[in-house]
Amino acid sequence: MATDTPMQLGMIGLGRMGANLVRRLTRDGHHCVVYDVNESAVRELEGEGAIAAHSLGDLVTKLERPRAVWLMLPAAVVQSTLDQLTDLLDPDDAVIDGGNSYYRDDITRAAQLTPHRLHYLDCGTSGGVWGLERGYCLMIGGEQEPVTRLDPIFRTIAPGTGTAEPTPSRHANGSAPEGYLHCGPSGAGHFVKMVHNGVEYGMMAAIAEGLSIIEHADAGLRKRSADAETTPLREPEAYQYEIDVGEVAEVWRRGSVVGSWLVDLTADALARSPKLDGFTGRVSDSGEGRWTVLAAVDEGVPAAVISTALTDRFASRGLGEFADRVLSAMRSEFGGHAEKRSGR
Amino acid sequence: MATDTPMQLGMIGLGRMGANLVRRLTRDGHHCVVYDVNESAVRELEGEGAIAAHSLGDLVTKLERPRAVWLMLPAAVVQSTLDQLTDLLDPDDAVIDGGNSYYRDDITRAAQLTPHRLHYLDCGTSGGVWGLERGYCLMIGGEQEPVTRLDPIFRTIAPGTGTAEPTPSRHANGSAPEGYLHCGPSGAGHFVKMVHNGVEYGMMAAIAEGLSIIEHADAGLRKRSADAETTPLREPEAYQYEIDVGEVAEVWRRGSVVGSWLVDLTADALARSPKLDGFTGRVSDSGEGRWTVLAAVDEGVPAAVISTALTDRFASRGLGEFADRVLSAMRSEFGGHAEKRSGR
Amino acid sequence: MATDTPMQLGMIGLGRMGANLVRRLTRDGHHCVVYDVNESAVRELEGEGAIAAHSLGDLVTKLERPRAVWLMLPAAVVQSTLDQLTDLLDPDDAVIDGGNSYYRDDITRAAQLTPHRLHYLDCGTSGGVWGLERGYCLMIGGEQEPVTRLDPIFRTIAPGTGTAEPTPSRHANGSAPEGYLHCGPSGAGHFVKMVHNGVEYGMMAAIAEGLSIIEHADAGLRKRSADAETTPLREPEAYQYEIDVGEVAEVWRRGSVVGSWLVDLTADALARSPKLDGFTGRVSDSGEGRWTVLAAVDEGVPAAVISTALTDRFASRGLGEFADRVLSAMRSEFGGHAEKRSGR
Amino acid sequence: MATDTPMQLGMIGLGRMGANLVRRLTRDGHHCVVYDVNESAVRELEGEGAIAAHSLGDLVTKLERPRAVWLMLPAAVVQSTLDQLTDLLDPDDAVIDGGNSYYRDDITRAAQLTPHRLHYLDCGTSGGVWGLERGYCLMIGGEQEPVTRLDPIFRTIAPGTGTAEPTPSRHANGSAPEGYLHCGPSGAGHFVKMVHNGVEYGMMAAIAEGLSIIEHADAGLRKRSADAETTPLREPEAYQYEIDVGEVAEVWRRGSVVGSWLVDLTADALARSPKLDGFTGRVSDSGEGRWTVLAAVDEGVPAAVISTALTDRFASRGLGEFADRVLSAMRSEFGGHAEKRSGR
Repeated sequence: MATDTPMQLGMIGLGRMGANLVRRLTRDGHHCVVYDVNESAVRELEGEGAIAAHSLGDLVTKLERPRAVWLMLPAAVVQSTLDQLTDLLDPDDAVIDGGNSYYRDDITRAAQLTPHRLHYLDCGTSGGVWGLERGYCLMIGGEQEPVTRLDPIFRTIAPGTGTAEPTPSRHANGSAPEGYLHCGPSGAGHFVKMVHNGVEYGMMAAIAEGLSIIEHADAGLRKRSADAETTPLREPEAYQYEIDVGEVAEVWRRGSVVGSWLVDLTADALARSPKLDGFTGRVSDSGEGRWTVLAAVDEGVPAAVISTALTDRFASRGLGEFADRVLSAMRSEFGGHAEKRSGR
Repeated sequence: MATDTPMQLGMIGLGRMGANLVRRLTRDGHHCVVYDVNESAVRELEGEGAIAAHSLGDLVTKLERPRAVWLMLPAAVVQSTLDQLTDLLDPDDAVIDGGNSYYRDDITRAAQLTPHRLHYLDCGTSGGVWGLERGYCLMIGGEQEPVTRLDPIFRTIAPGTGTAEPTPSRHANGSAPEGYLHCGPSGAGHFVKMVHNGVEYGMMAAIAEGLSIIEHADAGLRKRSADAETTPLREPEAYQYEIDVGEVAEVWRRGSVVGSWLVDLTADALARSPKLDGFTGRVSDSGEGRWTVLAAVDEGVPAAVISTALTDRFASRGLGEFADRVLSAMRSEFGGHAEKRSGR
Repeated sequence: MATDTPMQLGMIGLGRMGANLVRRLTRDGHHCVVYDVNESAVRELEGEGAIAAHSLGDLVTKLERPRAVWLMLPAAVVQSTLDQLTDLLDPDDAVIDGGNSYYRDDITRAAQLTPHRLHYLDCGTSGGVWGLERGYCLMIGGEQEPVTRLDPIFRTIAPGTGTAEPTPSRHANGSAPEGYLHCGPSGAGHFVKMVHNGVEYGMMAAIAEGLSIIEHADAGLRKRSADAETTPLREPEAYQYEIDVGEVAEVWRRGSVVGSWLVDLTADALARSPKLDGFTGRVSDSGEGRWTVLAAVDEGVPAAVISTALTDRFASRGLGEFADRVLSAMRSEFGGHAEKRSGR
Repeated sequence: MATDTPMQLGMIGLGRMGANLVRRLTRDGHHCVVYDVNESAVRELEGEGAIAAHSLGDLVTKLERPRAVWLMLPAAVVQSTLDQLTDLLDPDDAVIDGGNSYYRDDITRAAQLTPHRLHYLDCGTSGGVWGLERGYCLMIGGEQEPVTRLDPIFRTIAPGTGTAEPTPSRHANGSAPEGYLHCGPSGAGHFVKMVHNGVEYGMMAAIAEGLSIIEHADAGLRKRSADAETTPLREPEAYQYEIDVGEVAEVWRRGSVVGSWLVDLTADALARSPKLDGFTGRVSDSGEGRWTVLAAVDEGVPAAVISTALTDRFASRGLGEFADRVLSAMRSEFGGHAEKRSGR
């Protein structure tokens, strides 16, 4: 099902997501000029039908005006790349930042391009390693004109209406049911993507906590220390269950209120490794969750669940250790409590 | 697609969920004997092919041994109904409690039935008002024999494998991919359902908080009080977005990491009423969330997100008012701060 | 300043708190008969003026009727000791449980003693290792008559009015300004002590978190990983402070809003060991915090701060590990994120 | 007990805190030149021994070089005042900002003054309406030289060693036991004060939550709705206490682990108004709590309790309403739950 309106797109950054965007566009009939500092990534996509570029200048030369250049780069190199492109591009050309930039940088960057009559779009892109197959959910910020012009590109990248049932009460038009949305002026796309990731933190934590409560439903069967520093379990007979959490994740996938892609993925991970032995539980966070909390604080909006999910990630990496030592020190001071070094 | 193995089931309690369970069973070829204190509910289902019973005794009489009787009742009347059934039923008969009973009651009730050689199954049932169409996710506790015997019933009620893609890494057998699971001995079904609802609280809160942060992305456009009791917004230029949260919910339905049935439902609610004017924001909780937190505390498992989601529901109903008055009183004491009565 | 009304008290359990209660009573002119399974503890207090008992029966024999027997025992042996005393004591005698029993057990135990015309008082006792010198804060539950009878005992144990300035607006009579309070019927004393400890958890966590934020005010000076799994610090120039947290705790002791005994103790711990090297940060919890959260949930009262403080203690002991592994597994599934094993 | 080394200080801003600082300094033998846009405030302090100034220029003229000018102003006018002073002052003069400025502004402002060879000190000042009597806790940032020069001023303003027992393990010298501390370079004082206020939020919330749990210990005596939207209280017999929370606050003041100035103040507020009828429970926040959370997020330090305390203040002012309406809408969608408009 090729696009009716094939377009040209330059893609800079051919990591997993950039490369898959190119593949999805190429399959649908668009023409991509691709560049990456890693030449083998360029050659690989050339072999799949893309046009190879060997420098930013080369990429710009190989695109017709008005050009569209998509950046799929680590946050740290977006600014320097944009600076170079500012000199290479011509009026009416558009740059799309599809990475996870902070929306405040988008506001600055769009203002930087305006005197050059260049357009800047920020495009939050969700879908991860599955996007090639499922399509990517796109949250777009910037001026209306370039968003309209690039509509065929967004339409191809997005999942399309067929990937979910129509929303019964919905009568509005618009592209949201296709899986892409022009959210507002510069920064609005990354703002919505930022909050999306904050929501993701909260949903993930809810699922993880629930499965953990089920995993520990055998607490009454486990041997506990009997000392003054350990709370006894008053009713061990109520915690005698040995429940297969992988099967629970699987059964929740159908018909339940918590059905979600995250539960699907969790079921898959547990099917592969029932105890998740390959993980230690140090959970990274990569910016969007933090920025979501900062936005909530600035706005004065209560976001206790998202804040807590972020905080718990910090704690999982040992960042609460000093505070915890202060607590143990206080307990020693007022109660003479010695810290237990083992057991839980 | 009628069942291969039609069975007989008695259904007591013909509210929305009980009635829809009967309909789903009847459509698939099972035979239901139905009873409710509300006679019109009985007549309505009789008109759709069920056999009407006019008392508990009548229902028992109309079922062949070994009988299966499903209770779909408010928590408050389960025990008294079970007491009556204990006298009416015969050895090997089975009672299924499909409501939202506390799993600790299941342990007690199963023990109550054992001397009568009656079987007791607890069956957490998720699916709400949509279950007739989508099927219900079933989490079952109790002995193996009656669970096996009633397999055709559970299979019909559950959504079936076709309602979601197979889990790629899964090789295990079992009924979980059908949407029902025998979780363990008595209480295990309601335990898993209880935690399911706890997870639901957390996921709901994450989505609601995220949409609220987006709804308030116009904070820099709103007029704020300028007084010592109001924190100024340092960078109002970063909060100038007027974003349609309904469109955001819609776009998140496809391809995004937060895709979920809850987002689907939220998109529908917002399509119907973009400002949700029909609601005041007093959020009820009906037991399972509380019990989930109690279980986490007993087990010593951190469940900060679920706990916070529960606490926030309490607060939404004004239950934190005394504590908040204490806070205002302290601020008045140490800083002479007068409480602001309006504005936010 | 000896008491005007010397009384007799039997003390069972001569651990740190029991022994110091005896010392405080003896110094003030009361007469204590003491018993412990550890004979050397008995001998030590005998050397300080107490009357030694060599069994529960011996202790009972050495007291005049109506007797008062104070239990200062580990929670695990309170019930069995009470069972023995029930047989040994006579009508009108009183038993005081000064330990950290769950208030629901007090209700049961008081009911157990009633048919024997024995009185049961529950007495939450705060003060830790400092109580001998500072006095103990007493929260008492039970019938009025024995509380009144034992008033001289409570008055001696409590700190006395001189240990804090009078509350300016207070005109009520009563013993609260002495540092002891009859809170209500059986269980009320331990209920208030339970919540006291919940408040303690929250206050401790607030102080520990604050000092940790100050300890990490040098974040901009520390080397950070620069990879996709690590959020860069946007404004390192704002985190260039190397602040001595021990000095901060010390300065907060005088004139500040956070002045408190917990800050006093923290300053002392940090004066002794500025980095608290002797602690690993595994923070125990010993029941009252959990029970406080259970009470809040039962009552439907929001107690987010206390709940969070409890949850964080669980996490400090590694009890969130399974949930954290689920989170890492999800991140791997949807984003191909590999877990970072070192760094923070 | 007059100071040995009387100094001159200019005070700009004669609100409650500014005026009381002047009074405390004057009483101790220092000489204050005072200015405020409100002339009656100037006249009032003139009557108490201060030297009146009628403009910023007049104030500068009336001070000898090197001058020390203390700003005790609303955050909104600090910058403009500082801009004017920059022109009026001479090299080596020092400006002290004693208000609640954001520490990041201190860094900027100190840099602004440097080319003029003016010194800038940021001085977090805790003590509220009680500081005149108790002394103020001072947290100071800036260069060493002016901090040393102004030591007699800080010493007079601070509470002094006599206001608390010495910390037993402390052997270090320094001013912290006097109640003032040079925390580090510019911004360090307000950084520590900011976190101090964050700690204050957490401690206040812990106390308020605890008293609320005690206030609701009568939950089993209250009539509850019996409907599907209301969780029944399983053991009402465990919640039959009518406890006087004012008496509890009073008893906690002596000997208990939670003893603190905040508990003292709470006891006073409850002595005056046992139900705190004069307050509605809309709890303001005025910046420092927010900034503390932002710092914790930037540093990656878990601060769940302080974050939660902040979030709960937002919620107390109705700022969570949209999120709560989303929750009610979801419950309606999946379960057909109608929102309860009354009761709790």
